[in-house]
Amino acid sequence: MTRADRPLALTLGDPAGIGPDITLLAFEARFRTPIPPFVLLGDPDVLAGRARALGLGVKIKAIADASAALPVFAIALPVLPISVGAPVVTGRPVPANAGAIQQSIEQAVQLVQSGAASAVVTNPISKVTLASAGFGFPGHTEFLAALAGREASDAVMMLVGEGLKVVPVTIHMSLMDVMGALSTERILKTLEITARDVARYFGLARPRIAVTGLNPHAGEDGTMGREEIETIVPAIEAARRLGLDVSGPYPADTLFHAEARKSYDVAVAMYHDQALIPVKTLAFDTGVNVTLGLPFVRTSPDHGTAFALAGTGRASPRSLIEALRLADTMRRNADAAP
Amino acid sequence: MTRADRPLALTLGDPAGIGPDITLLAFEARFRTPIPPFVLLGDPDVLAGRARALGLGVKIKAIADASAALPVFAIALPVLPISVGAPVVTGRPVPANAGAIQQSIEQAVQLVQSGAASAVVTNPISKVTLASAGFGFPGHTEFLAALAGREASDAVMMLVGEGLKVVPVTIHMSLMDVMGALSTERILKTLEITARDVARYFGLARPRIAVTGLNPHAGEDGTMGREEIETIVPAIEAARRLGLDVSGPYPADTLFHAEARKSYDVAVAMYHDQALIPVKTLAFDTGVNVTLGLPFVRTSPDHGTAFALAGTGRASPRSLIEALRLADTMRRNADAAP
Repeated sequence: MTRADRPLALTLGDPAGIGPDITLLAFEARFRTPIPPFVLLGDPDVLAGRARALGLGVKIKAIADASAALPVFAIALPVLPISVGAPVVTGRPVPANAGAIQQSIEQAVQLVQSGAASAVVTNPISKVTLASAGFGFPGHTEFLAALAGREASDAVMMLVGEGLKVVPVTIHMSLMDVMGALSTERILKTLEITARDVARYFGLARPRIAVTGLNPHAGEDGTMGREEIETIVPAIEAARRLGLDVSGPYPADTLFHAEARKSYDVAVAMYHDQALIPVKTLAFDTGVNVTLGLPFVRTSPDHGTAFALAGTGRASPRSLIEALRLADTMRRNADAAP
Repeated sequence: MTRADRPLALTLGDPAGIGPDITLLAFEARFRTPIPPFVLLGDPDVLAGRARALGLGVKIKAIADASAALPVFAIALPVLPISVGAPVVTGRPVPANAGAIQQSIEQAVQLVQSGAASAVVTNPISKVTLASAGFGFPGHTEFLAALAGREASDAVMMLVGEGLKVVPVTIHMSLMDVMGALSTERILKTLEITARDVARYFGLARPRIAVTGLNPHAGEDGTMGREEIETIVPAIEAARRLGLDVSGPYPADTLFHAEARKSYDVAVAMYHDQALIPVKTLAFDTGVNVTLGLPFVRTSPDHGTAFALAGTGRASPRSLIEALRLADTMRRNADAAP
């Protein structure tokens, strides 16, 4: 079996959310548009029930081994079964299913680590559901880092959409906390991981990285904040000494229009909204969340569980489809690398 | 003379910057696209010299009174002369010309206050040039507020582009200072001025205002910052008690995609980049800067002096053209209001 002949491992996410819906819709889309083969890790009965609720004639097939996924994929949605702990009520998450949610992620990582799957794609989970069941991680990224034997700080989130790639240096913290969390060391580490993995997974020998400032107009020579001078510029200079193609800091407001986007391969921003406003403004339905810094490829749709939409037929599979395609593209690029 | 039969008053901005270039190009564009008539307040010799440098056959006509602008506009660019204090070297700003720059703005305000002009449109100025000549204001907005006898805090900046209108509550300050500068009172005042002037100038009886949070995910119920709960929500509630159509706080990253933009008429954001990233990502060449809260309409192109582009023929007049059109539209809406 060549490296290409393996399915993507797709987790089910919270079974009460839209994960089942968009999985079924993405699978069904394969007659109209190329969908890379995947194997779902989750409860086949939940999928079958959701298919009935949505009026979808999708055939679901439980398989015993990931190697059966490819021949099955043309005719049925292949599932490696993980039973839920409690009956699933669509739209109503329960802590009793936290175990099955977690197991799905663990098995996806095992499959990719053993070589049986080519990459991990995750459906949305609810932090609240998992935390109430004692899950000790803020989210997917940190859990995946732990499963891969990495530090949480090794995992770097990148958003991809409409040709734009953006990495926030800090993510889920208050804006007040950003100032204290930014350091030259942290920015430099983010730049190094970004440069290495964007090269590896996107077929770019030496990606051009554009770095934003923290303040308006990138601080305007220190007149509106000194973080650029004291923290960001030293990180850029250190990255350049390592041979990376890094420039900036640029004012964030003028870095994301069409003409500016041509000047770099990936932008590194200082905080959540600075990175996510441009990508979600441009690519709301098609944005993909990528985790860099892991020993395998992981992508996910760039949205949450959307419990209110589960089972209604109004959830769009577009972001999941983009996540499946991007995971497939990224691991093919990595396989093709010298 | 009806209210419509008056020119817009256009300042020259820094004569060493691209103000002369884009003024000439906007005037020349009137044969291809509708350009509302304007009178320029500035040095006719600077304009004539720049026209020669750019190879433009634009005729320039000094006039003694703004009332002559309309009949002249079809054949020549009408100028109310203000001589520069020192010879202009294109691309090289000098403090000696700060007086002429300032006078241009003062006369534009006088014209609109006397009724001889319908609105003020300003070309870009350089804060550094003006400050070195003792100009005591951070920028246009504060100077215009003072000329109009208003407090600087009465003047509210709004960016307009591609159908999006965004108002930042705080503007030119470091991100660290934003947290201290935001108050319920300040947000409420911004909401009141925005609601009143967007109604008046855009023909909307009761504009729908969407307010962003400060933190990622609008703080996610206080888990990532409490400014939403303690500062922003009270301002929204107070605005509603005043009868305004205000909602939020919304996560800023999901407020600016095409579908979301249909749900409001104007967004109010907490700080510079949160407001300017979406509008400049979507409308980099066509964004317009509007000052609300003044007793007259004022717009300007959403870019700076661009000294390096002056005289090169590479400056685009698109943003100035949009600023002229928007000023004309806004004051017509105000004139038509009951």
